[in-house]
Amino acid sequence: MEFIAETPLDMHLHLREEEMLSLVTPFSAEQFAGGVVMPNLVEPVDSLDRLRSYRSAIQTACGNAVFHPYMTLFFRDYSRQELMTARDEIIGLKLYPAGITTQSEAGVRDFNRIEKTVALLEELDIPLLIHGETAGFVMDREKEFLPVYERLAGAFPRLRIVMEHITTSEALTLLDRFDNVAATVTLHHLLITLDDMAGDLLRPDLFCKPIAKTPRDREALRRAVLEGHPRLMFGSDSAPHPRHRKECLDCAAGVFSAPVALPALVQLFEEADCLDKLPAFISTNAQRFYRISPPAKNVRLERRPWQVPEHYETVTPFLAEKTIAWRLKPSGSD
Amino acid sequence: MEFIAETPLDMHLHLREEEMLSLVTPFSAEQFAGGVVMPNLVEPVDSLDRLRSYRSAIQTACGNAVFHPYMTLFFRDYSRQELMTARDEIIGLKLYPAGITTQSEAGVRDFNRIEKTVALLEELDIPLLIHGETAGFVMDREKEFLPVYERLAGAFPRLRIVMEHITTSEALTLLDRFDNVAATVTLHHLLITLDDMAGDLLRPDLFCKPIAKTPRDREALRRAVLEGHPRLMFGSDSAPHPRHRKECLDCAAGVFSAPVALPALVQLFEEADCLDKLPAFISTNAQRFYRISPPAKNVRLERRPWQVPEHYETVTPFLAEKTIAWRLKPSGSD
Repeated sequence: MEFIAETPLDMHLHLREEEMLSLVTPFSAEQFAGGVVMPNLVEPVDSLDRLRSYRSAIQTACGNAVFHPYMTLFFRDYSRQELMTARDEIIGLKLYPAGITTQSEAGVRDFNRIEKTVALLEELDIPLLIHGETAGFVMDREKEFLPVYERLAGAFPRLRIVMEHITTSEALTLLDRFDNVAATVTLHHLLITLDDMAGDLLRPDLFCKPIAKTPRDREALRRAVLEGHPRLMFGSDSAPHPRHRKECLDCAAGVFSAPVALPALVQLFEEADCLDKLPAFISTNAQRFYRISPPAKNVRLERRPWQVPEHYETVTPFLAEKTIAWRLKPSGSD
Repeated sequence: MEFIAETPLDMHLHLREEEMLSLVTPFSAEQFAGGVVMPNLVEPVDSLDRLRSYRSAIQTACGNAVFHPYMTLFFRDYSRQELMTARDEIIGLKLYPAGITTQSEAGVRDFNRIEKTVALLEELDIPLLIHGETAGFVMDREKEFLPVYERLAGAFPRLRIVMEHITTSEALTLLDRFDNVAATVTLHHLLITLDDMAGDLLRPDLFCKPIAKTPRDREALRRAVLEGHPRLMFGSDSAPHPRHRKECLDCAAGVFSAPVALPALVQLFEEADCLDKLPAFISTNAQRFYRISPPAKNVRLERRPWQVPEHYETVTPFLAEKTIAWRLKPSGSD
C-alpha cells in the first residue's frame, strides 16, 4: 500500500547551525518540499545579511534534495525600509516573548511597544508568527497568552497571524473567531500528553515548549486536525539537542521529530481513517494561508513497518525504538 | 541564633539497601529522633523476617546516632495471626496501588478486595499508610484517589489512616471531614511546583511521585502546615537515586531531601515568622496521632548559611548548590 504526499510542508522547523544543521536538515529535505525555518539561533537571525548566510548554509545541507527553506526574521523593531527590502525573502517575522524558550532572550519584553512594527507588517502584508506563551504556570502559559492574540487579531484585521505549535483546546477557539488567524500543530502534541513525559518515568526526550498538556487538550487538537480544519497547518517544531543536553540535570526543551514526521503523520491519519484530510494539514492549508507556491514534489510512502533508531548520532529522535507502520519509499523505487 | 528541634521525626522516609542505605541513613539519623521507613524495596518488606533483617541493617547504618526506625510492612493480605505477631514491631502497613511509583508492582490492584485486611487493622489498631494516587492523568491522580480515602475513613471509623505526601488543596479538605485521617507533607512539596521541574529547563532531580503541583496547591499546603494544622506531619519522602538513574532517558522519581530536611524546614518556618508552629509539624502531631514515644533527642541548629553540595557521592540532593540559612550545630559545640 502506498501513500503519495503531494508537496508536503513543515511549517515550523529548527534546523540549528554547524554540525547539527548538517545532521538534521537532510531528514526534512527528504520528506518535505519546504519548511518554515525558525530564527532563534544562538545569535538570532535578525538581519537580511544573517538570513542570507543562514539560508545558504541550509541549502548546502540539503544537498540535491528539492527543499525550499521559508526563512523568518527574529521579531524586533524593524524600519519600513528594512521590511520592504526583506519581504521577498521571508515568509514572516517570528515573535518570541523574552526568555520563554530556547534562545529567546532577545525576544519581546513589552507587548505594548510592538505596535509600530506590527502595523508595518499589516501594511506590507507580512505574516506574524508567534510563540504564544506567558511566563505563568507552565500548564497555563498558552491559555494566558490568548488575549494577546485576540488583541492583535482585532486591532490588525488584515494582518495574518500564526499561533505556533498550539497545544490547548482553548487556542482552537480563536481560529473560529478570527479569519486572519491560523495555527501550526506539531506531531508530538497530537500524540503525547504530560503523562507520556512525566506520568511514569521522566522522559526528557519528550520535554518541549510548550509542554505537552492534558488528554482533553490532545483530543481537541486531534479532532480539529483530523476533521481537516482549514487553518491548521503541520509544523513539526522539530528541535534537536545533543544527548548531553537532554540526559543531564538541566535538560533542554525540544522534541526531535524530523526523522519520523511524515511516516508518523500518515500512520495517525490512517488509524483515524481520514487519510483524505492529510493533504490539507500538510500542504494545501499552508499554501492558501501563506499564499505560497512551493516546488512541486511528490513524496512516496509505503505501508511497511520500520523501527526508529535509538539515536541519530548525538540526538535521540521522537519515537526512538518504536515501530512506525509507514516508511518513506526510497526515491526511484516502485 | 539557635533553634532546638525537640525530638524531630521524619514520618516518611526511603532508606534503600546496601551501599545506598549506608550513604543516606546517617543524614536522617543525624537530624531526626526517628523516622517511618518505607517498605518498597526491590523485594518488598512483607514479612516479619524481612522486616527484622532490614531494621537491623538500618540500625547498623545509624552507627552511634540515636534514631528509631519506625518500620512498616508492605500491604498485602495478612492473617490475624501475622498482624498480631507484627503489631509491636511496626508503626503501620503501607499500601501502594500497583505500579504507581518506584517498586510498587506488588501493590494493590483491586481496592474492593482489601477490606478483610483493613478490618483487621482497625480491630488491632494498626495504622494504614497510603500512597494515594490513581493511574489517571498525572496532575489529577491524587484528587481522583480521594474517594478511596473517604470510603475507607467512613467504613472504618476507628482505623487511623495516613494520606502520605499530600500535594493538593483538595486532599487537605479530607482532614477536616475525618478525625481518623492524618497526612504527611514533604519539604519539597512545600517549596516547589511543576514550574520548578519543567517550567524552564527540565530538572530530573525535582521529579517525584506525586508530581509537584500548581502554585495554588503549594500555597494551600503551606498555609495549612504553617498555621499548625494538628493532623499534618512532616514526612520527607526523601528518595535517593544514583545519578545514572536521574540523568538519562528514563529518569527515576524521587527527591533526595534527607541532607537538607531540618535546616530547610527551619528556614521556611522562620521566613514565615512561625517557628513556634514547627514543633507540631515535625514532632508532636505525629506522636499524638501515632501514639508513639520516640527517644528524647534535641537537635540544635544555628543560623549560619551553608551551601548544599552538588552531590553526595552518587546522589544529587534537593537544593543542590543552594544556600540554606540554617545548619545543624555539630554535637558538643556551643
